[in-house]
Amino acid sequence: MSADLQMMANAIRALSMDAVQAANSGHPGMPMGMADVATVLYTKYLKYDASAPKWPDRDRFVLSAGHGSMLAYSTLYLSGYASPSIDDIRNFRQLHSPCAGHPENIELEGVESTTGPLGQGLAMAVGMALAERHLNAVFGDDLVDHHTWVVAGDGCLMEGINHEAIGLAGHLGLGRLIVLWDDNRITIDGSTDLSTSEDIKARYAATGWHVESCDGHDFDDISRAVDAALADNRPSLIACKTLIGKGAPNKQGTSATHGSPLGADEIAAARTELGWNYPPFEIPADILNAWRAAGQRGSGAHADWKNRLSANGNGAEFTRRMKGDLPQTNAMQDYLASLIANPAKVATRKASELVLEALTAAIPELVGGSADLTGSNNTKTKATEPLTRNDYSGRYVYYGIREFGMATAMNGMALHGGIIPYGGTFLVFSDYCRNAIRLSAIQQLRVVYVMTHDSIGLGEDGPTHQPVEHLVSLRAMPNLTVFRPCDTVETAECWDLALKNSNGPTLLALSRQNLPQVRTDASENLSAKGGYRLRAATAPRTAVLLATGSEVELAIKVADALEAAGQGADVVSMPSWELFDMQDAAYRADILPNDVLKVSIEAGVTLGWQRYTGNDGINIGIDSFGASAPAEALFDHFGFSVDAIVNKIQAELKA
Amino acid sequence: MSADLQMMANAIRALSMDAVQAANSGHPGMPMGMADVATVLYTKYLKYDASAPKWPDRDRFVLSAGHGSMLAYSTLYLSGYASPSIDDIRNFRQLHSPCAGHPENIELEGVESTTGPLGQGLAMAVGMALAERHLNAVFGDDLVDHHTWVVAGDGCLMEGINHEAIGLAGHLGLGRLIVLWDDNRITIDGSTDLSTSEDIKARYAATGWHVESCDGHDFDDISRAVDAALADNRPSLIACKTLIGKGAPNKQGTSATHGSPLGADEIAAARTELGWNYPPFEIPADILNAWRAAGQRGSGAHADWKNRLSANGNGAEFTRRMKGDLPQTNAMQDYLASLIANPAKVATRKASELVLEALTAAIPELVGGSADLTGSNNTKTKATEPLTRNDYSGRYVYYGIREFGMATAMNGMALHGGIIPYGGTFLVFSDYCRNAIRLSAIQQLRVVYVMTHDSIGLGEDGPTHQPVEHLVSLRAMPNLTVFRPCDTVETAECWDLALKNSNGPTLLALSRQNLPQVRTDASENLSAKGGYRLRAATAPRTAVLLATGSEVELAIKVADALEAAGQGADVVSMPSWELFDMQDAAYRADILPNDVLKVSIEAGVTLGWQRYTGNDGINIGIDSFGASAPAEALFDHFGFSVDAIVNKIQAELKA
Repeated sequence: MSADLQMMANAIRALSMDAVQAANSGHPGMPMGMADVATVLYTKYLKYDASAPKWPDRDRFVLSAGHGSMLAYSTLYLSGYASPSIDDIRNFRQLHSPCAGHPENIELEGVESTTGPLGQGLAMAVGMALAERHLNAVFGDDLVDHHTWVVAGDGCLMEGINHEAIGLAGHLGLGRLIVLWDDNRITIDGSTDLSTSEDIKARYAATGWHVESCDGHDFDDISRAVDAALADNRPSLIACKTLIGKGAPNKQGTSATHGSPLGADEIAAARTELGWNYPPFEIPADILNAWRAAGQRGSGAHADWKNRLSANGNGAEFTRRMKGDLPQTNAMQDYLASLIANPAKVATRKASELVLEALTAAIPELVGGSADLTGSNNTKTKATEPLTRNDYSGRYVYYGIREFGMATAMNGMALHGGIIPYGGTFLVFSDYCRNAIRLSAIQQLRVVYVMTHDSIGLGEDGPTHQPVEHLVSLRAMPNLTVFRPCDTVETAECWDLALKNSNGPTLLALSRQNLPQVRTDASENLSAKGGYRLRAATAPRTAVLLATGSEVELAIKVADALEAAGQGADVVSMPSWELFDMQDAAYRADILPNDVLKVSIEAGVTLGWQRYTGNDGINIGIDSFGASAPAEALFDHFGFSVDAIVNKIQAELKA
Repeated sequence: MSADLQMMANAIRALSMDAVQAANSGHPGMPMGMADVATVLYTKYLKYDASAPKWPDRDRFVLSAGHGSMLAYSTLYLSGYASPSIDDIRNFRQLHSPCAGHPENIELEGVESTTGPLGQGLAMAVGMALAERHLNAVFGDDLVDHHTWVVAGDGCLMEGINHEAIGLAGHLGLGRLIVLWDDNRITIDGSTDLSTSEDIKARYAATGWHVESCDGHDFDDISRAVDAALADNRPSLIACKTLIGKGAPNKQGTSATHGSPLGADEIAAARTELGWNYPPFEIPADILNAWRAAGQRGSGAHADWKNRLSANGNGAEFTRRMKGDLPQTNAMQDYLASLIANPAKVATRKASELVLEALTAAIPELVGGSADLTGSNNTKTKATEPLTRNDYSGRYVYYGIREFGMATAMNGMALHGGIIPYGGTFLVFSDYCRNAIRLSAIQQLRVVYVMTHDSIGLGEDGPTHQPVEHLVSLRAMPNLTVFRPCDTVETAECWDLALKNSNGPTLLALSRQNLPQVRTDASENLSAKGGYRLRAATAPRTAVLLATGSEVELAIKVADALEAAGQGADVVSMPSWELFDMQDAAYRADILPNDVLKVSIEAGVTLGWQRYTGNDGINIGIDSFGASAPAEALFDHFGFSVDAIVNKIQAELKA
């Protein structure tokens, strides 16, 4: 058996080195080093059915060391997934090939997760493993009973996110998570000795993990270690001692194999070393057949599972959740009706809690949490009991002081399916998890970020806690919808839109301070237009005031003052630039007429507002860091007062 | 002695609870919990002279748990620093008080570092401790011989940055770094049991640290632990077992003391508990005198040090470096002259290396590094030998795969003084260290971020590695100067400006791909204007093309095509929005005339460019994520071709 396994592993090596060579770009070292481990995983342990990549109860496999993407493409092709084809692999790293430089979940069904930004694959796998335990607790072993596997490199373990991710996994006892660490002691700059002296296994053990080692080129030893990991109820790290670029006789074991083609001569030498006497991209029938057989190992288990699903009373509900369809519910309409009947003056973070009370009661797949700011982010509701290692059925995760770990875990849950995750921190600390928000967007994941304390309105905590550049910085991110609602009604509307946006993340920027309810009608979701006329000018229109969130109240007061002076002013609430930009030109021109002075009012940097006000408009904002003082004092200090703004507008109108 | 120490510590407790109460906002729990530890530190160990806050050889003290700012303000006031005054403390968290919600280095000389964003204080202290060892290696024990102390909370240790920071400190053997961990087992959400099960001491030990524990309310035991830490040559973590809010009899030990005023009743009870029978903000003379004596403990050592400085042959050079003055050198002029004589077509990352070769040879305080992308960021020069635990005199740090850790360490080095740090990673991974860049900006630190692979021009690595939203996201950050130079000359100019900007960080966005040298004259630093006319229209002007970095070459070709059609076009290179915005109105109007079509060309999101092109201009950009393919294919795919752009311009001119 070992001889066959060796040639099966060498097929990965050959495809990897040849594809990188053909592309003249890529990373052969990792796939060649981890080919033996991957072969053991795919032929013996991984529960999958190559003919059904999205079988809900499959094991999840995450290539956290995403630069080794040819490992993923090789195993998918060899084991018989419909995609990628061998031609796709020939076109590795070329435009329109699904075999992108780093694996992308939106390109290939068999790729569970987009990886490349180091450390995050493993951290997303924590979320997947958490989702598995949660859904297992809800739906039982018959429907949900699988493992999550990770291949990670030294880089994944050195990144800060690793600490947060493994801390969470250890704390929650996610024993079905198994990390295969490509322990090759090589990074781009050279030996790991250049930059680290850590005893990684001891660190993992200190964090509640089970730890194993194996010779990553000895099939039996790999199996022994995996068996031990499967038998342990803690999450497991297996240090697979490997030689980077194994098979390239002159370059293996060096950083030269990490991120560059091996070159024709070394590839020829590797063919000899590996006993691989076949042209590029050709896999001999016996080896391919052995791989294809491995790809069907799970078909019986898959069929059994389908039978259990059919017989299960919760089968339809399980399928609904995994498809990502929302349940039928009137919760939102009822809640909005209650707001119109009894308007509330609360902070929008509190407004978010109020609507979440209704939504979490009606939508069981909502799983919330906060990075240790539960009482500040207002993310916990009565329906969401704590999710703990003793009760995975809970729906509220105490993520700890781990913003990045929270975001990556949410990405993992969304990737797993069956859960709509939301989680909170302060808006300023979106910086700490920014690249995970980016991966939510790239991966088209329904993740909801509840970011409170969204301006100088948080007051005394001062500039380190006051976001000023964050709104525009996040609006700049493709496929992320940023909302800054102004009251209870808009907050509910934005939550509604967030849940209905199944192809991308949403970020809610919410106030610490109370805001009046300015909407008295909720018959139409006006936030869906991104921006809308909240109040039309009464006197002849001289200005259009554009505001978001907590500054809408101020805009109304400014309009009042202008109207009192006989100068009419529209007030436009603009909770989302992204959605406003998607409206047709006529609508946008109606809201932002050409011939009227336009004034933006937002407690953040002015950069970007010129798109709506033009360069002849007025931009009220804060183009510096904030300060520490009570909120009212700060707004006044930074020019957010009725008088200051009215004066500016009237001066401009005069000029 | 212990009795006096107790009342000295209680002075911290009283000031803290009273200031928070007066502000009706703040965090009494930490200062009350760590008052005893801080008292031991300030009265027995910390080397400082309250009359000379900036004495270069003082110990550094960083309050990483910055929310406990009243601990810092109390000790500074009590020990006799000129600022804050007791009135400043009375005005804690009020506008214009230097006693901000979180400590700010720019408000108080005695505050070494702005803290609040958790984990970063400790991580900056790693940079300070590294700076100390480096300068010690260069200037000797006579001039540089001090410790770095940190007070950190559970949050600081749970954040991902902690892993990166302590990994770096352990690897580099920074034995003069001592972290006093406020081990109170309480976070905002409640007990640490809610979110972590980690054996923190074992984790630190695994990372090469010496670990101690003590009773944080037993003065002798604190001293014992500190003595052990001082005696060990590894960095030390001391777990100080404390009761959060110690002294508040009904609330201590609970999260209720963390972030809210105690309330009048509990404060009255605490006064009884502490035997503190004095009105708010009044410190009895004997206790204040004891503190003031402590504040003068270091005056002898300071005087001795001044004598050694005077006698030291390198004293003037040391003083120059610590002041942050650049040396006299013709390195830049000579290098620019060589470029004009021999123009080079290289990537701007390579251009950065070329100018760094000249600069690092001439400016010894430049200390470089990269987060494991040395060969890609081109940050290492011949003059910068590796800085290792065996040779701290080196000037190149292999930071490992720790972008955030690198940025925080650079902040710490800049805060320490005597070093101008620069470090590299890919621009997309600015996301990983974004909040540290923000702290560079808030703290007004001269840190240079060398961010390469700045667009889809990096090619095959694909969307996870291709920044699109990053340029505008970073331009939005106050006090950060972002440069995207277009060739060798501009790259040198931007480096020159970065080094001369002693009050803020600079970020250089550099290309992976080669770019022609378009500047043939370097007699004036044109990049200093932020944007300038690189080439004026020859035919009657119909368009102004604004471009940055790698797209300047394209803009020139577009201009060539337009000119060939008889349509004149200016080409404006715009390496820095921030500097352009600082030019006077006449200059800006000359560069961006009102009556001409303006076209921006930049391989990033178009958001923000409207400020320069107006809404009737054309914005060529990428408002989506990138793709994996060779660079040329990507530029063509995303519309960055001469034909596509010329067609758009001509269509607009016709319309």
